[in-house]
Amino acid sequence: MTQKPTLPTIEDIRNAHQLISAHAHRTAVLSSKQVDQKTGGQIFFKCENFQKVGAFKFRGATNAIFSLSDEEAAKGVATHSSGNHAQAVALAAKMKGIPAYIVMPENAPKVKVKAVKNYGAEITFCESTLDARESTLEKVVEQTGATFIHPYDDPRIIAGQGTAALELLEDHPDLDIIMTPVGGGGLLSGTALAAKSIKSDIVVIGAEPKNADDAYRSFKANELIPVKNPDTIADGLRTSLGKLPFSIITQHVDDIVTVSEESIIEAMRFVWERLNMIIEASCAVPVAAVFDGKVDVKGKKVGIIITGGNVDLDNLPW
Amino acid sequence: MTQKPTLPTIEDIRNAHQLISAHAHRTAVLSSKQVDQKTGGQIFFKCENFQKVGAFKFRGATNAIFSLSDEEAAKGVATHSSGNHAQAVALAAKMKGIPAYIVMPENAPKVKVKAVKNYGAEITFCESTLDARESTLEKVVEQTGATFIHPYDDPRIIAGQGTAALELLEDHPDLDIIMTPVGGGGLLSGTALAAKSIKSDIVVIGAEPKNADDAYRSFKANELIPVKNPDTIADGLRTSLGKLPFSIITQHVDDIVTVSEESIIEAMRFVWERLNMIIEASCAVPVAAVFDGKVDVKGKKVGIIITGGNVDLDNLPW
Repeated sequence: MTQKPTLPTIEDIRNAHQLISAHAHRTAVLSSKQVDQKTGGQIFFKCENFQKVGAFKFRGATNAIFSLSDEEAAKGVATHSSGNHAQAVALAAKMKGIPAYIVMPENAPKVKVKAVKNYGAEITFCESTLDARESTLEKVVEQTGATFIHPYDDPRIIAGQGTAALELLEDHPDLDIIMTPVGGGGLLSGTALAAKSIKSDIVVIGAEPKNADDAYRSFKANELIPVKNPDTIADGLRTSLGKLPFSIITQHVDDIVTVSEESIIEAMRFVWERLNMIIEASCAVPVAAVFDGKVDVKGKKVGIIITGGNVDLDNLPW
Repeated sequence: MTQKPTLPTIEDIRNAHQLISAHAHRTAVLSSKQVDQKTGGQIFFKCENFQKVGAFKFRGATNAIFSLSDEEAAKGVATHSSGNHAQAVALAAKMKGIPAYIVMPENAPKVKVKAVKNYGAEITFCESTLDARESTLEKVVEQTGATFIHPYDDPRIIAGQGTAALELLEDHPDLDIIMTPVGGGGLLSGTALAAKSIKSDIVVIGAEPKNADDAYRSFKANELIPVKNPDTIADGLRTSLGKLPFSIITQHVDDIVTVSEESIIEAMRFVWERLNMIIEASCAVPVAAVFDGKVDVKGKKVGIIITGGNVDLDNLPW
């Protein structure tokens, strides 16, 4: 497993942006008078739900995969995921023309399995425990020589995720606050690195479900406190904060706030109804934080990264 | 009732664009590799579901209302509608700072009544027949002296709706085909006027539900054949084609195609799932026409105007 645990810099993020811009969408930034009236601020949504594979994860995966040496690339890439990262790795590998090996739990939603297959990846199924996923991945990597693309604990991934904030600040250089949800921490750490380098007085805030508040607790305690099987509708945020993201977050993030499940669902539905776009529960977390007054946005310009829009339309929370 | 039955020109559309651009969003244009692969063309979606009030109707209403003389404006505006036009007139009137009188059927969805009320309009309820709506409106206009803002049979409305195509062709000047759904015909006629003036060899196509195919039949017969209470999920397209739109459509539209209810629902869901945006059934109609091969788009660049995204999330067709 090739891991380079050095912290990425703003140059890495700018290089990532150049590298991925031929492959990834420059996503739209939407705003809504109704949201602004409700909050008293000016909220700008960076719509990564319109990104390829429907999520920001494509940025990091593309940067990591297109940064491989020819020798590494020839052997392909591997990861374990049942979510957006699996699709992101599969599509980026397809674009690069190299094999992708994805380890997925047997009980992964059929629609996600199908999407990964459609991108031409080779799927290995395993039991749905983290242990089984990790040991199966290890075997796959041993057999194939593929490079493991970690979903967040990797500087190339973090640099890739930071490109969304880079674009958002190009479009709206005068943001006072920038917010993202926090799960493994790849997006929040990349966003913090990008935003603070571009505008040193910007306030960077992560938002997390109360029911999966390991990043909040880790941030407050200044030590990594993992969470076990948290029960939250925000399925993208059930992961524990990664080491590398944590070290960046402690340095560059101003605060982490938490919100209830009810607030997440309410904010999710509000965005669906008023902005007419489909967002995952995970992206509703920072929106809920603003709606609940957990962050004071009155009179402020606030950027929120809308992380993805892959939801099961037959299983909506209302 | 002030009606000016002269045909709008490209200058009217350009003037409308200048007039409304301080008030309306310049909406995003989205595309999707999955849609392109499915169709063999390059499809560009002009996203009026992200427009104010969630629909293109805001363009026409704003142009009509901001074109009023001071004397007309002082007395306010009136219309009858249970749909997006009601909200569009209500919001545009609020922005102009003049009264809006909206006649709505008693059985109008509560959420739509609430939205119109929120924009500060005065609502008069009536029975849900067209006769009751028209006679109630007439009374309101008599009492108030308000100007009737027709949803489509008005050159200022048509010019306003044409601004969406204007923007789309500014962003993508090399479109081969441009498509819209057709109900009353305001959008299709405005689009045809704009598109043919800007690019004379562009092909303009309207799409209609088979179950409400009055525009199709009128177009083929070259005479206006109204439809009575058509049964289609595309509620925005149940209206019969208007006179003024019809006269423009016979001149400038190349074809009108029809699609089944099943195809509409399938296309609607495809867009929700793959583009992560919420579109009304009405906007799925041209998408369905492309998916069904009713229009040959192979190797072509095709613009589709996504008309709106106001749906009842508790009452989805799947």
